[in-house]
Amino acid sequence: MNMILLHKSDFIDNDTVLITDRRLKHMNEVHKISQGKDMDVGLLNGKTGTGEVMEFNRDSVKLRVKLDSEPPAPTPMTAVIALPRPKAVKRLIQSATTLGIKEIYLINSWKVEKSYWQSPVLNEESLNLQLELGLEQCKDTVKPNIYLKKLFKPFIEDELPGISKGSTSIIAHPYSDSEIMPIIEEENHILPKITLAIGPEGGFTDYEIGKFTEAGFSQFSFGTRILKVETALNFLTGRFYQNI
Amino acid sequence: MNMILLHKSDFIDNDTVLITDRRLKHMNEVHKISQGKDMDVGLLNGKTGTGEVMEFNRDSVKLRVKLDSEPPAPTPMTAVIALPRPKAVKRLIQSATTLGIKEIYLINSWKVEKSYWQSPVLNEESLNLQLELGLEQCKDTVKPNIYLKKLFKPFIEDELPGISKGSTSIIAHPYSDSEIMPIIEEENHILPKITLAIGPEGGFTDYEIGKFTEAGFSQFSFGTRILKVETALNFLTGRFYQNI
Repeated sequence: MNMILLHKSDFIDNDTVLITDRRLKHMNEVHKISQGKDMDVGLLNGKTGTGEVMEFNRDSVKLRVKLDSEPPAPTPMTAVIALPRPKAVKRLIQSATTLGIKEIYLINSWKVEKSYWQSPVLNEESLNLQLELGLEQCKDTVKPNIYLKKLFKPFIEDELPGISKGSTSIIAHPYSDSEIMPIIEEENHILPKITLAIGPEGGFTDYEIGKFTEAGFSQFSFGTRILKVETALNFLTGRFYQNI
Repeated sequence: MNMILLHKSDFIDNDTVLITDRRLKHMNEVHKISQGKDMDVGLLNGKTGTGEVMEFNRDSVKLRVKLDSEPPAPTPMTAVIALPRPKAVKRLIQSATTLGIKEIYLINSWKVEKSYWQSPVLNEESLNLQLELGLEQCKDTVKPNIYLKKLFKPFIEDELPGISKGSTSIIAHPYSDSEIMPIIEEENHILPKITLAIGPEGGFTDYEIGKFTEAGFSQFSFGTRILKVETALNFLTGRFYQNI
């Protein structure tokens, strides 16, 4: 936690917050709270700044906050990812959040096990916690949107063309003989808008690749190594964006 | 496990292996072993190829193997990483391995907790398992070298200049006001040789940065977001290498 993420409900007056939950525990253990100490804070979906410790005890800490800076710019990538196994979902969501990705679609695919969709890691509360931990790690305040799309065909046919409109639309596909993706250069320091699809373990089926192609996606390889989905997303974000 | 990693000790004659351990369990659960089935295999530090299922039962599987292909080329990056918390070490080693990185130094730093060095995840057997899982994931056979360097100063002063010689030597440092790292272009399709240093949570100290600078390293920023070490390594590998 490099920044304490504040909620509107933490405010007890205009510039004072009272914190009592997991954030207090972390502040106590890692930040060594002391009277007068300044800590990095940010208001969920708002500005960032500092919070000065006014009072603290075992059960709560009171900070006087000054919110005067903008959070970092978003990374203009939309990630469309075949739902990975539950234990990978938490890390995937956290790392996508730290990379500044704001639109995350978890979709179905032939090789996604049906049971994954029943996992409690997909509950709103669980996803929300991962998003907040990611924001606290990278000192951002803008919560990404996560969309769960259990039906492949209607999503690809009816929604994806609208979602990917105006972006470079790419399927990362190590199994293909497809060409190596060229570097997409920044133009006038504007980061390129990319929609990136990453398949499940074992890859998308030919039928699925065909449907992505109909939706305007091109298939590229980034070498022959097969990466785990989280590693692939991190690697490809670095491949596409010079700084985040 | 996208490839079954074979050891010389698995061979019962010139072209036949007998597998009985965790690999068998995985093959049974995920690959659905059947008579005559071809599976991707690779000999540790040797060639890759296929293994045809000759016989199998609950306790073992016998494959006839043909090793006729080269493993993927290594990624010419040397990673010098402040030892992260134990639970992050396993994933870091696995993902560095899948990215093709062959030289991994885990080093001490002021902000590395001393207790981390006592963790059983640093035992040879534990590290070895992570390396092998990484190789099986990315279908490589060449085992990376991991070096544990508990003393910062002698490592940086006496060893690092030799290790990083002939490479572009970079400290990733989000806290600095340093400039954004330019893209290092491939020359004649030869991947650039890079030594990349990544600090602990909280960053390297000014003293440590100074020592890296004396050893020929330059400090660069890749944006303001603070990434976890594993995410940073994956992201920066994508930043430096067009394909792996």
